[in-house]
Amino acid sequence: MNLIIPSAHINMEYLRSPEADRWLFNADILVDKAHVVMLCEQGIIREEDAVAILKGLQEIERGGVAAIKLEEYEDLHTAIEATLIKLVGEVGGRMHTARSRNDEVATCIRLALREELLKMLKELNGLRRTLLKLAAAHTTTIMPGFTHLQHAQPTTLAHHLLAHFDALSRDFERLLDAYRRTNLCPLGAAALAGTGFEISRERVCELLGFDDIIENSMDAVSTRDFLLEALSAFAILMTDLSRLAEELILWSAPEFRFVRLPDEYTSFSSIMPQKRNPDFAELVRARCGTVLGCMAAAFAICKALPYSYNRDLQEATPHLLNAVRATLPSISVMRGMLEGCSFNVEELRRKAAWGFTAATELADVIVRGTGVPFRTAHKIVGAFSKKFGGEVADVTPDANTALRALDELSLEILGEKLSERGLSAEEVRHALDLEENVRMRSVKGGPSPSEVERMIREREDRLKKDEGAVELREAGARDALKKLEQAVGSILSRGVRLSFAGRLF
Amino acid sequence: MNLIIPSAHINMEYLRSPEADRWLFNADILVDKAHVVMLCEQGIIREEDAVAILKGLQEIERGGVAAIKLEEYEDLHTAIEATLIKLVGEVGGRMHTARSRNDEVATCIRLALREELLKMLKELNGLRRTLLKLAAAHTTTIMPGFTHLQHAQPTTLAHHLLAHFDALSRDFERLLDAYRRTNLCPLGAAALAGTGFEISRERVCELLGFDDIIENSMDAVSTRDFLLEALSAFAILMTDLSRLAEELILWSAPEFRFVRLPDEYTSFSSIMPQKRNPDFAELVRARCGTVLGCMAAAFAICKALPYSYNRDLQEATPHLLNAVRATLPSISVMRGMLEGCSFNVEELRRKAAWGFTAATELADVIVRGTGVPFRTAHKIVGAFSKKFGGEVADVTPDANTALRALDELSLEILGEKLSERGLSAEEVRHALDLEENVRMRSVKGGPSPSEVERMIREREDRLKKDEGAVELREAGARDALKKLEQAVGSILSRGVRLSFAGRLF
Amino acid sequence: MNLIIPSAHINMEYLRSPEADRWLFNADILVDKAHVVMLCEQGIIREEDAVAILKGLQEIERGGVAAIKLEEYEDLHTAIEATLIKLVGEVGGRMHTARSRNDEVATCIRLALREELLKMLKELNGLRRTLLKLAAAHTTTIMPGFTHLQHAQPTTLAHHLLAHFDALSRDFERLLDAYRRTNLCPLGAAALAGTGFEISRERVCELLGFDDIIENSMDAVSTRDFLLEALSAFAILMTDLSRLAEELILWSAPEFRFVRLPDEYTSFSSIMPQKRNPDFAELVRARCGTVLGCMAAAFAICKALPYSYNRDLQEATPHLLNAVRATLPSISVMRGMLEGCSFNVEELRRKAAWGFTAATELADVIVRGTGVPFRTAHKIVGAFSKKFGGEVADVTPDANTALRALDELSLEILGEKLSERGLSAEEVRHALDLEENVRMRSVKGGPSPSEVERMIREREDRLKKDEGAVELREAGARDALKKLEQAVGSILSRGVRLSFAGRLF
Amino acid sequence: MNLIIPSAHINMEYLRSPEADRWLFNADILVDKAHVVMLCEQGIIREEDAVAILKGLQEIERGGVAAIKLEEYEDLHTAIEATLIKLVGEVGGRMHTARSRNDEVATCIRLALREELLKMLKELNGLRRTLLKLAAAHTTTIMPGFTHLQHAQPTTLAHHLLAHFDALSRDFERLLDAYRRTNLCPLGAAALAGTGFEISRERVCELLGFDDIIENSMDAVSTRDFLLEALSAFAILMTDLSRLAEELILWSAPEFRFVRLPDEYTSFSSIMPQKRNPDFAELVRARCGTVLGCMAAAFAICKALPYSYNRDLQEATPHLLNAVRATLPSISVMRGMLEGCSFNVEELRRKAAWGFTAATELADVIVRGTGVPFRTAHKIVGAFSKKFGGEVADVTPDANTALRALDELSLEILGEKLSERGLSAEEVRHALDLEENVRMRSVKGGPSPSEVERMIREREDRLKKDEGAVELREAGARDALKKLEQAVGSILSRGVRLSFAGRLF
Repeated sequence: MNLIIPSAHINMEYLRSPEADRWLFNADILVDKAHVVMLCEQGIIREEDAVAILKGLQEIERGGVAAIKLEEYEDLHTAIEATLIKLVGEVGGRMHTARSRNDEVATCIRLALREELLKMLKELNGLRRTLLKLAAAHTTTIMPGFTHLQHAQPTTLAHHLLAHFDALSRDFERLLDAYRRTNLCPLGAAALAGTGFEISRERVCELLGFDDIIENSMDAVSTRDFLLEALSAFAILMTDLSRLAEELILWSAPEFRFVRLPDEYTSFSSIMPQKRNPDFAELVRARCGTVLGCMAAAFAICKALPYSYNRDLQEATPHLLNAVRATLPSISVMRGMLEGCSFNVEELRRKAAWGFTAATELADVIVRGTGVPFRTAHKIVGAFSKKFGGEVADVTPDANTALRALDELSLEILGEKLSERGLSAEEVRHALDLEENVRMRSVKGGPSPSEVERMIREREDRLKKDEGAVELREAGARDALKKLEQAVGSILSRGVRLSFAGRLF
Repeated sequence: MNLIIPSAHINMEYLRSPEADRWLFNADILVDKAHVVMLCEQGIIREEDAVAILKGLQEIERGGVAAIKLEEYEDLHTAIEATLIKLVGEVGGRMHTARSRNDEVATCIRLALREELLKMLKELNGLRRTLLKLAAAHTTTIMPGFTHLQHAQPTTLAHHLLAHFDALSRDFERLLDAYRRTNLCPLGAAALAGTGFEISRERVCELLGFDDIIENSMDAVSTRDFLLEALSAFAILMTDLSRLAEELILWSAPEFRFVRLPDEYTSFSSIMPQKRNPDFAELVRARCGTVLGCMAAAFAICKALPYSYNRDLQEATPHLLNAVRATLPSISVMRGMLEGCSFNVEELRRKAAWGFTAATELADVIVRGTGVPFRTAHKIVGAFSKKFGGEVADVTPDANTALRALDELSLEILGEKLSERGLSAEEVRHALDLEENVRMRSVKGGPSPSEVERMIREREDRLKKDEGAVELREAGARDALKKLEQAVGSILSRGVRLSFAGRLF
Repeated sequence: MNLIIPSAHINMEYLRSPEADRWLFNADILVDKAHVVMLCEQGIIREEDAVAILKGLQEIERGGVAAIKLEEYEDLHTAIEATLIKLVGEVGGRMHTARSRNDEVATCIRLALREELLKMLKELNGLRRTLLKLAAAHTTTIMPGFTHLQHAQPTTLAHHLLAHFDALSRDFERLLDAYRRTNLCPLGAAALAGTGFEISRERVCELLGFDDIIENSMDAVSTRDFLLEALSAFAILMTDLSRLAEELILWSAPEFRFVRLPDEYTSFSSIMPQKRNPDFAELVRARCGTVLGCMAAAFAICKALPYSYNRDLQEATPHLLNAVRATLPSISVMRGMLEGCSFNVEELRRKAAWGFTAATELADVIVRGTGVPFRTAHKIVGAFSKKFGGEVADVTPDANTALRALDELSLEILGEKLSERGLSAEEVRHALDLEENVRMRSVKGGPSPSEVERMIREREDRLKKDEGAVELREAGARDALKKLEQAVGSILSRGVRLSFAGRLF
Repeated sequence: MNLIIPSAHINMEYLRSPEADRWLFNADILVDKAHVVMLCEQGIIREEDAVAILKGLQEIERGGVAAIKLEEYEDLHTAIEATLIKLVGEVGGRMHTARSRNDEVATCIRLALREELLKMLKELNGLRRTLLKLAAAHTTTIMPGFTHLQHAQPTTLAHHLLAHFDALSRDFERLLDAYRRTNLCPLGAAALAGTGFEISRERVCELLGFDDIIENSMDAVSTRDFLLEALSAFAILMTDLSRLAEELILWSAPEFRFVRLPDEYTSFSSIMPQKRNPDFAELVRARCGTVLGCMAAAFAICKALPYSYNRDLQEATPHLLNAVRATLPSISVMRGMLEGCSFNVEELRRKAAWGFTAATELADVIVRGTGVPFRTAHKIVGAFSKKFGGEVADVTPDANTALRALDELSLEILGEKLSERGLSAEEVRHALDLEENVRMRSVKGGPSPSEVERMIREREDRLKKDEGAVELREAGARDALKKLEQAVGSILSRGVRLSFAGRLF
């Protein structure tokens, strides 16, 4: 173990990452316990020593991070060890047999990150469930579909919400992939080159609920790729949330009025109760920027570091923590905000017609119904739009009037009436009526009520499966830690009555 | 399709991404063909029209991207369509039936990225093979293991190289995960809301060798998460390569002289032939920075974009391309550089002893052999180090002298001789002899020759499996495209003799 | 000079930055000329050699970058030197006396960047002029002022546009600061440690129009801080432009309809002529992301490089170039877009009243007129807002009705009528009438027509001064280069008739 | 003022930036005082109200940030106002007359940043002084000059250290430029559109020691460009420090042994006292990455925000704070580390000869002495290097032997002896003797002792001027705040005896 020599001049402050240390406290205690159990089981330390250390660790655990006086030590690991030695005497130093801070800290970060990933996966499933529920309530809610923030085609709110659901489903997958490469055990790598002690890396791995060991000992202490991967997955997730947040901000602007955000997710002034500021949505959007910064920092830190451990790696951890703290509550906030949203169905419907959004389908109907080339249909519909397409109003004529107008225009452009080429008023009506217009787009993945209903059903199934996947991992981790406590208990019960006077609290 | 109205004032240049367009050319032709085949099979366009279009596409394919005059059009898709219409007449416009540039471009990027990912996976396996080969040649090459760029413990070069191998194996996994979420087909999503035409999205998906469709049509045109994920995977990979590059730069500095880089990967001056500048390694390191920039740009671009398509998305593509162009050759360069490296085995061995790197093992041996507490052992070895541990030399005494010295020091510190507590000269010899010292660390993942040999064998198997995984995907893509050509051929052969005069070249 | 030994295996491609090389071509020729003139004047090379070299350089200049076959050489500097030697024989090699590629390339980048900065400063002044002109046309155009994208208070369009003007004025200052630290001459630093030749660094500096030399020779070749600073200044400028672009995108959405973008800066579809996609504004927004990426890359590249020159530095240059190429036309595009904008004055005025934006001023008027505490005034106005403040309409009552209502509410809340505490209908009218409301805010920097007119006048003066500052620098650079050509001419005229057969083109 | 309605569901935590709030506490009290003084002087609030508020503020100031219960409020400003009202009653609400949180927070951030910038400028000057002092001690210390981490030419340690000094001098300039654009007063801008109250923005500006007001009120609350500029300046500074840190890490590696870091800036193990880990230098290097992340975050947050205030802006502040906290102590740490460094002068000198670093000068001497072309000289010296240039040793022959060898080689290559073309043994000796070799490079900015001494003298002067510039600004700020306290005192003394029972502490 490397120690900084205390000195009058020294800037101990500069060496510390106290927030990250607090975050790792629980993980460190678990890692200590598992390591000591293994050392004892392998006969590397005596049972009585193990008993003393484990009792000491239990005492420290009870005291919590506040009791170990982080501010007096270089880092968490040193603080715990020093506190332990204060409690149980020199024997406490044996805890560090056959390991180093290098493998220890890597193990702690992975363990702490695993817990955060599990929470995040659950929160994300919660948000997905909310989106599904909202979608189910709005399968027939017509709204304008946008490209370039301009009205392009009518769609359904369910269709729009499911688009976000699907993006978040891929975020779920990515987090799960990150989980897979995070939940690996570096302990036993020691400083970088393993140890001559006959340790069992597999046993520690099992007791801590890791899926496997990270084998090569130099790799184990040098890599932070799992951290970079998690940050990347968070960044993509936050990018997805920022897009949804942007929509909520736009949609709650007076110009849009598509949605009313719940009171508890807006701020408003006592003199302007109409003004409902979407502070939470703005902060979700902004925190995406924060996570991008965390990612940028961690990558810049890891770039071009020679193997194995360098102190720089310590500086990556707070960025992981900050990203977790920005991401996790953003998911919950987004869920809460959506749960309480009330969509203005009339306004959505009203504006769906603005800009003559039926145009594309009308042109397609003409192509299908009459076989005229694409561009000709476009020309005719373009002229029709100029006549009837209100920029910010629905001025669509009834089907017969429309067909007459189309005939006139096509006569001019094509030299022929469309009705004579087989276009019927009924077909025109289908295209111009937004409800029909949407219903016709029942292609795989399209916005028609029947298709979005089908999609919702399938996604329900998928979500259940995904919830199961999280539960499985959670149970695995929980069971392992239970096993760890049993192993600790078993040593303590077999152990001689230990009488250490030390009491921390 | 949206069109920019040409004008005297317009800055068409500003709209274009010509490099990205060139990159997407092949993909676009494939997408066009698959779409037209499907339209024809579904009866949406007539067979004779399909024949004309497909012949035109073949002609354009033959001409290559240079022939379509990208500089006259807003983008690639417009240029191809306009060229097609020039070749085969108005019927060419039918190619765009039931799709939009929004789904088209998303499909093209995914297709082009898929090809790059396959190349990258193969190159990466090549580099991994090189590392395995080098490791196999250096299982007994002793070298100093570093922490903080200070000598910490002796290790083997094989152990060090395998650490990089394992990091790159996780990069392989991540690229494969990115591949899985890339190889999905957006075509048929049209502008954002599907289409009323009775298209078969599954058929297009099959003909282009995608693993599945990306279902929700708004999601399909709005998301670029696959691009962000690929960039993240590239960035982690490049970070890993930058660390290896840094080591090669350090190791080839005159102060280290651990390695001699191959001539073709260094530059040197006519007047200083001793000076061998590691330009390639420096550029690998620097290109990691470039990829970090590409990633930062793409994330910042995607942040807070409302759905569905916004022109901003176009600006993300060049960053993907630039990252591919920085990453792919960096893998090959690293491989070539390593292949030609000659490691200075004597120098590695000589410097392995500097700083008394046997200390940790010696302390462990004392703990194991005598049962004295950890810290006491450290104290004794610390005093021993001061006496015998040369900072930049190996001044290790023979085992008997060493044991005598240890006894003296322990007598002073502990009040007892270590030899009397059971420490033998043989044990001391094992710790002090670096070869023995390393051999003892045969713990799972450790540097001992036997353990690294075992790891090499296992990794050989894994690498073969990974090579198989790439081949499978490659074959899948290749077969699909073959099927596409057959489908094209079948339409053309059934088709009426088409006589379009148009010849591009 | 370091040379890469060509080899069958070598990946020359990997070493090159061809785009950056093309960018630097003109600068390199100038640097070569100035260096040769100085060498000749100092008697370090003979006049006849100088004549040969300068003639060769003129020939190469005439041929342009296309003629020097960049693809055959490692970089631009090597290509020019090799071409020169081909033209004038071995004597061409003397050009490189007393310098190195390290100081040469640093000089070229600074020279090329200087030119771009001058262009950028001019473009930026053009954009500022446009904003001033637009502001002058809209000093009385009332519009809603936003916070959180919610209507907060009425303001004037001039006031809003001047806010952007002022931000861009600070961008101008920053670019000028960057210019100051860019326009410094590294030449003469040689590889890193100067030279034993009796060169005149001051003379080269003067001939190239640099403001000063960058003195310490190791610093001169090692630093790229000027590049990082320029990138930072570009990034802030682009962030400012992205905010303006975002507003144009929002304001041209059908929901807002505040502005109609010029045809040549929108794309639209043949079938939906109402849909005017703000592609240019979207790309300005996106290119801000690109510049952020360039900045991130360059910083990551420069981080932790030991002195002096490392090949990594080469990789920073393309990011500078890419940032220039994203930033410079964005300024012009923004200017052109604004020039052609037509603001919808009626719509701005109509929506200015939405959400009862007069509330804040009304409350202030009550505080001023009656002395009731702030919060009481807020309470009363809040109740009033609920009654009369239409969320998306102006339902403001006339002044007398309003005063009666306020009296009623204050009687309830305060137990007293406001009119009895001195509030007059005239004061209420002033607050409720948006034109009056705005006029009252004539505080320094406020939106009232008189104040914005004053601000416009002052900014006219400032802009003229800034235009002068750019002209001064331009003239300085231009005059120096003229002097350089004269010095070249003088040597050539004094020089013996040189007959080199070499002709490049 | 906008208020979040408290609710059972609300996630108040999500809204807060508690660390940033704590940072801004002192600034906020000052801003409150100055605003109240001005309101009172302008007659906008009554003197007795001002007295009550100012007394309340003094009480809050005494209590410090811990006493205002930040955790119960949405933000600092709300917490202070609520505490004030608790202390002095409803009149406390009058403090907020004619302002808003939007201008208030912008003013607080600028004030707090100003203080940090002043500290940073002073620390930076301290570090520069240390570098000058070290340089003065090492004007004749010969060391290898590196390019590509390979030995290139001998230089002096003073020359190398001055290169860092000059880079830091430009950092000083940039911080001063950032200071100039930071120290501007937004107060009086209110929410975004000024106010109808007859405030004096100039008076507030004067009392807070700002250099000027930031005029346009919408600009004043919307912009964070000063924050982005400060972050950029920090990032460049940290990049410069990271390069110096990298050198200290390399130079203290056993392979280099150029420097011994002071004990209090290294960590070492009890068993390996030779191993001195440069933890502080590693953390300086890593914190550069942290600052890059802060910068990336803040830019991504500000990108594409429409005017005026959006809640996103709040999220930028913590990144500024984090960057300050990473940067400021890094400067001090670097200074302390350098102060305590002992350079290994013998080792530097010994390794200066490795790789035959005299080669470049020798070739130049030949060119100068004999007039043979550059390349010929290179060829001859190249052959000479192969013969005598030890890669990791100094095998330079004496001058006569050397001249003979050169003659032989030139006879072969050139057909002529160099000595016959005028090369003297004395000239050869000058080039080969490293001390002479360095001395000859007395060109402006070169490494010769005389030139570095000249540079040190000039830099002493410049540093003194820079120290004066900081003092001037400090005094200006200090005097203004004194004036503010006097103005407060004057109101309080004129004020009626106020008896508010409220006592916080």
